[in-house]
Amino acid sequence: MLVSESALRTFTENIFLAMGCSKEHALLAADVLLLSDLRGIDSHGVARLTGYVRLWQKQRINPTPNIGIVHETPTTATIDGDAGLGLVVAPFAMQVAIKKAEQYGSGWVSIRNSNHFGIAGYHALMAVQKDMIGFAMTNASPLVAPTFSNERMLGTNPMCYAFPTGKYPPVVVDMATSAAANGKLEIAQRSGKQVPEGWIQDAEGNYTTDPHALKSGGSLLPLGSDREHGSHKGFGLSATVDILSAVLSGANYGPWVPPFVSFLEPPADPVGTGIGHFLGAMRVDGFRPVNEFKDHLDNWVSRFKSASAINPDQKVIIPGEPEYEAEIDRRKNGIPLVDAVVEDLNELAQRLNVSPLRPLKGKF
Amino acid sequence: MLVSESALRTFTENIFLAMGCSKEHALLAADVLLLSDLRGIDSHGVARLTGYVRLWQKQRINPTPNIGIVHETPTTATIDGDAGLGLVVAPFAMQVAIKKAEQYGSGWVSIRNSNHFGIAGYHALMAVQKDMIGFAMTNASPLVAPTFSNERMLGTNPMCYAFPTGKYPPVVVDMATSAAANGKLEIAQRSGKQVPEGWIQDAEGNYTTDPHALKSGGSLLPLGSDREHGSHKGFGLSATVDILSAVLSGANYGPWVPPFVSFLEPPADPVGTGIGHFLGAMRVDGFRPVNEFKDHLDNWVSRFKSASAINPDQKVIIPGEPEYEAEIDRRKNGIPLVDAVVEDLNELAQRLNVSPLRPLKGKF
Repeated sequence: MLVSESALRTFTENIFLAMGCSKEHALLAADVLLLSDLRGIDSHGVARLTGYVRLWQKQRINPTPNIGIVHETPTTATIDGDAGLGLVVAPFAMQVAIKKAEQYGSGWVSIRNSNHFGIAGYHALMAVQKDMIGFAMTNASPLVAPTFSNERMLGTNPMCYAFPTGKYPPVVVDMATSAAANGKLEIAQRSGKQVPEGWIQDAEGNYTTDPHALKSGGSLLPLGSDREHGSHKGFGLSATVDILSAVLSGANYGPWVPPFVSFLEPPADPVGTGIGHFLGAMRVDGFRPVNEFKDHLDNWVSRFKSASAINPDQKVIIPGEPEYEAEIDRRKNGIPLVDAVVEDLNELAQRLNVSPLRPLKGKF
Repeated sequence: MLVSESALRTFTENIFLAMGCSKEHALLAADVLLLSDLRGIDSHGVARLTGYVRLWQKQRINPTPNIGIVHETPTTATIDGDAGLGLVVAPFAMQVAIKKAEQYGSGWVSIRNSNHFGIAGYHALMAVQKDMIGFAMTNASPLVAPTFSNERMLGTNPMCYAFPTGKYPPVVVDMATSAAANGKLEIAQRSGKQVPEGWIQDAEGNYTTDPHALKSGGSLLPLGSDREHGSHKGFGLSATVDILSAVLSGANYGPWVPPFVSFLEPPADPVGTGIGHFLGAMRVDGFRPVNEFKDHLDNWVSRFKSASAINPDQKVIIPGEPEYEAEIDRRKNGIPLVDAVVEDLNELAQRLNVSPLRPLKGKF
């Protein structure tokens, strides 16, 4: 089914309003989810809406949070999200970082007591709109085992760096620190396909290509897959995300991070509150004039796009470019949703007494 | 040959003095190289001393640089290294970052017109000594091809994050963003061994296990090795290092980065000056009391050390722990140097009229 941006946006806003969010929060949370669907990152958009609702129903998400700064210096702050939607808490925190950067050159915020914040790119791009460099990371439910372990100790803990450009789309590096994102595994599970070796291991720590291994005690592997190919580096990056997001803010870290799914209970012995994020903004003109930076980054992009291609049909992809192209296409032509997501959303609409999603095209 | 820390330190200082460095700079540069050897990162210590000397002889390293801030805000700065040793320029820049952090909570410095800065960990650990979180990255001579390309466009571009702890060694994530560091390849070249698939490709972009492939147009692969295992993430991280270090500061980036070796000439059409670094420091107490952070990070380390091991003989390694243990051992028992390095250093000593290296143990 193909749905227009505005129809999906209104639908999503109505779901958040039905959860008891304020108008302002509902619009903001919907904006974060929509950008994910627009940019082609289908795993992090409205496909997760039912997940947020279920956590709210379990009273693990507070729809009317009192988000506040609990500690700060001119350029750093710790924010307590009051168990609110990360979709709302993170943009609030990023505004704080941006304000500090406007005044002092840079701003850095560690966040506790939050929930899933959608795509990291949304938050980092808030800085880019102000001619700043944006940083965004978050910890997440434990699914990834450190090198040499078969225990789920870390989330897919994404990190994002976003840079303003001149004539090209912003450069946006937005990546899980695991070899494969969990969304890719879910796709393989649904389609009944095997996954490549190096993505997951079974409960005993043997490589497996069975995408269902995660359901029987298996775990995702860090970026690098094995020690020989640098999985200790993926582990180190994931650890960095965990420490900056949670050890620094007072959120839960490592295996204590509460699960995003409502059917699993949070650990009984928390070491902090909720999950954690880390966000930052640095003014480009804190280093050199903005136009100089953009000219050189354009030159960088141009040179990398023309790097010698192994296969002439597959040129080098600049980070953020495919998402930018998807966004232009989907804003104009609509957002495709798979049947399972549409069914989920319709069931949700009925339950919360919200107008159903209307298709731009396709069966309903 | 085994050499004492103090003997190797004096020897190294004397080499830098012979290059015309000031006493202060010679001591500092030697300190950076020594820490690498002490921490067991043999590829980045005195083994590179002849490399620095050769670049100085070609007048590509200025032994008496006038290092200065060329642009700043309260928490950001751009520093021009005046073609000095990165071993001297980077600690200068880190001091600037630390001072800004002391005053405003955080400090961030992008550096141009520099040279190889040794191990990233040295600079990041300067912040840790002040109960700050340290960040250090640098770009480097192009050896790595982006995903889908067979052209050397990026250096092994390391990134380092370092965190102060309580009872455990500092957590130090210090990693090349390529699948394997160049040093590992050099070891395989010397020993005549093949390397694992996924480290390098030949000039046409085919996987190869021949460690000499780099000499015939081959290239290193980004962390992740291939697209399926996330090499676009390694490329994205490397791009981030390149942009923060060089596009932001006005250094050379991508394929324009001048080679570290004296027998290769820098590109004739530079896009900036020298190579670039990016360093930062954030006060832990800008977010929460230092003792709280350290207690939780100790708890984090303790929990990860006890994560279920696949093989009971191989527990999870905390980033920075092996290097810390090497440092304790080598400070006490001496630093082992391979014959080729000792020969190099002795030849250097003779050429620069410096007292030869005296062994603690082993033949001379």
